[in-house]
Amino acid sequence: MSPAELIERKRDGAELEPGDLRRFLEAYLRDEVADYQMSALLMAVFFRGLSASETEEMTRAIIESGRRLDFKGEGPPAVDKHSTGGVGDKVSLVLAPLLAELGLRVPMMSGRGLGHTGGTLDKLESIPGFRTGLDLDEFRAVVDEVGCAMIGQTPEIAPLDGRLYALRDVSGTVESVPLIAASIVSKKVAEGIGGLVLDVKVGRGAFMSDEAAARRLAETMVTLAGSFGLKASALLTAMDEPLGVAVGNALEVREAFDCLRGEGPADLREVTLELCAVAAVDAGTQPDLDVARSRLASLLDDGTALDRFGRLIERQGGDRGVIDDPSRLAAAPVVRELSSPRTGWVTVLDAREVGLAAVELGAGRHALGDEIDPAVGFEVLCSVGDRVEAGQALARIHARTDDGAARAALRLEQALELADAPLDRPPLVLGRVDPP
Amino acid sequence: MSPAELIERKRDGAELEPGDLRRFLEAYLRDEVADYQMSALLMAVFFRGLSASETEEMTRAIIESGRRLDFKGEGPPAVDKHSTGGVGDKVSLVLAPLLAELGLRVPMMSGRGLGHTGGTLDKLESIPGFRTGLDLDEFRAVVDEVGCAMIGQTPEIAPLDGRLYALRDVSGTVESVPLIAASIVSKKVAEGIGGLVLDVKVGRGAFMSDEAAARRLAETMVTLAGSFGLKASALLTAMDEPLGVAVGNALEVREAFDCLRGEGPADLREVTLELCAVAAVDAGTQPDLDVARSRLASLLDDGTALDRFGRLIERQGGDRGVIDDPSRLAAAPVVRELSSPRTGWVTVLDAREVGLAAVELGAGRHALGDEIDPAVGFEVLCSVGDRVEAGQALARIHARTDDGAARAALRLEQALELADAPLDRPPLVLGRVDPP
Repeated sequence: MSPAELIERKRDGAELEPGDLRRFLEAYLRDEVADYQMSALLMAVFFRGLSASETEEMTRAIIESGRRLDFKGEGPPAVDKHSTGGVGDKVSLVLAPLLAELGLRVPMMSGRGLGHTGGTLDKLESIPGFRTGLDLDEFRAVVDEVGCAMIGQTPEIAPLDGRLYALRDVSGTVESVPLIAASIVSKKVAEGIGGLVLDVKVGRGAFMSDEAAARRLAETMVTLAGSFGLKASALLTAMDEPLGVAVGNALEVREAFDCLRGEGPADLREVTLELCAVAAVDAGTQPDLDVARSRLASLLDDGTALDRFGRLIERQGGDRGVIDDPSRLAAAPVVRELSSPRTGWVTVLDAREVGLAAVELGAGRHALGDEIDPAVGFEVLCSVGDRVEAGQALARIHARTDDGAARAALRLEQALELADAPLDRPPLVLGRVDPP
Repeated sequence: MSPAELIERKRDGAELEPGDLRRFLEAYLRDEVADYQMSALLMAVFFRGLSASETEEMTRAIIESGRRLDFKGEGPPAVDKHSTGGVGDKVSLVLAPLLAELGLRVPMMSGRGLGHTGGTLDKLESIPGFRTGLDLDEFRAVVDEVGCAMIGQTPEIAPLDGRLYALRDVSGTVESVPLIAASIVSKKVAEGIGGLVLDVKVGRGAFMSDEAAARRLAETMVTLAGSFGLKASALLTAMDEPLGVAVGNALEVREAFDCLRGEGPADLREVTLELCAVAAVDAGTQPDLDVARSRLASLLDDGTALDRFGRLIERQGGDRGVIDDPSRLAAAPVVRELSSPRTGWVTVLDAREVGLAAVELGAGRHALGDEIDPAVGFEVLCSVGDRVEAGQALARIHARTDDGAARAALRLEQALELADAPLDRPPLVLGRVDPP
């Protein structure tokens, strides 16, 4: 079958014959199928979807395009977490050392921020000296020594995913459940872990604003992971407003330290504990979620997980001293408060707008390769459901220039809505998808 | 707006803002939008369509990508015909000299065969010496001298269409009504003609097998042409079985000569007269269709149109002697008859299958650039509705080798269905779409 014929079959809604999609993807890797044929197929997939077996075939082809690690042999269970991306989402920085402290191994591969959402790598790199670019052997070694390691995607793992993602990003074909699922699950399977917990964000600041669509994505990923022997669970968590107070890289690292000391915002702690509890129960190291939650909470409250994070930072070349002296993190020269124009209740705090405002400040990037400014960002001092008084500080803006701060203040104001009547604070955890 | 954002807007079903599609296409011409972005957009258009104003904007961008001729000044009305492609469709070879004989100017730009359909250029080039690659100045000169000229698409006219078509062909995005309409109408508007008659084929051997879809295409083209001041009419004509008897380049040229002498197959004569009559009435040179038909028929029967074709052949470098001595055309070394396996009525004679069998004989090409064999093809000696006797010749196969003839016979047999009961012969002209 020629590439054009395969594209037409998918376009016309037929299920591809077993092997056809794999051969198409392999030909793409050999440059025998062109980018313009792949992008046309991806757009056809956007409209027609992929069947479960097509999705599995695509995922397998992505996995087989690169190296596979294996953490499933001797040693404690190895698990990882993946979030579909949000604003103020510093959960990974808490979760990795916390699960390691619980006795699991956490070989974590993360991404950079793009669009309005932040990325774990950018946050880690705001710690002076922290190296996210370890090679796979060093990665393994850090996991063995510390119990967790946090690095970026390496070109050896699932290189086809990197090519496809770059193409999707510029051809309007990102938003497809099977393509997203194949991209995420392939990389996690190639990591060679035994358990995966997925944080599928829902809401204004999430990639999916619609809960039903998010659930579909969660179910697709959980089933797909299972078909590769990877036990996965998913939580659907709210991303209408930023998670926690801090938005911006160094600010978020400080907040992660707070959480790891048993302090910091309640929502960040709740989501982190929930994801960790699910991972621990799935891994069989905790009897049930309640026991797991309380054990995990004590590992935050007694500071042992924070100590573990210190060892991780040190082992990956970072300045462990930032934990006790956060002034060693980058700080913005301009700090300005945004005051409430009136008294009322916060009914909207649009995470997406906050994220875009942070990008404009320099905390994120418009295009891959852009430099980011680790110091800038926001402390968002109110939440949906809060009553605020006129003149009360709603947020603290950390900016490089006065001008930047003023523009951010304007944009932040537009992200907020105040009303005369209160709104119930919505739940943080909206649902769960268990492994099949 | 970034290219990806425009693609997403179309993908999500929004109408593009005026100017956005034009800028996207202009950026593509400057190589600032990549082929993989264009093919993704084309696939999104396949699913979402284009509004009338988007289609017009795209058509305008294609026209403005190249030179425009103008035949609308002094002199008789200039008209052209376009067929959406069929099997055995040699109408252009008869229509051009016939309309010229009627006093119209016919500056005709045609295409090559691709897939199962034939192309006028390939047919013309089976006449020894015939040059289809005239430049635009010579093209004008031939029209002025002979009344008609027949050349291929030149790179100066609508070059963007050439790029888009090549991309659509390999990315599974050919079958889209607005894209087809923009491609056809842009080239005809750029020809600078005042009238256009469209032959939209319907049936097994047509690009569109569904009459409703064909009508939609016809209406889109007629309206689109009108918005550029080009008066167009469309006929929907049957393409379930080949048109005429001959399928294959030199064989079809012989049949065109026959038709131009008032002989040859009735269906070819009927479709040609109908298209010519519509063109002549639209151009205002004939009072009504009946008068036009009878005047045109006499120009076939008295041989004057054939004489005009002779002058055209001569002026474009061809051997005019082939008209009186068709043995000067290429002839295939192997000629073999296919006999009917039984007595019965012909109920199916699948034009698409016949076309594909002809391609396999060498009469057409699998890919642009393939050499074709002008001599090979078929004479299909029966039609749907005919009663045939066991042993009667159903077709004559003209092949390069015995082996090729044997394979073609098998394939031809499969294109035919015989039954015990007759089927009414379906009408040839299924409908007409008049200018707005």
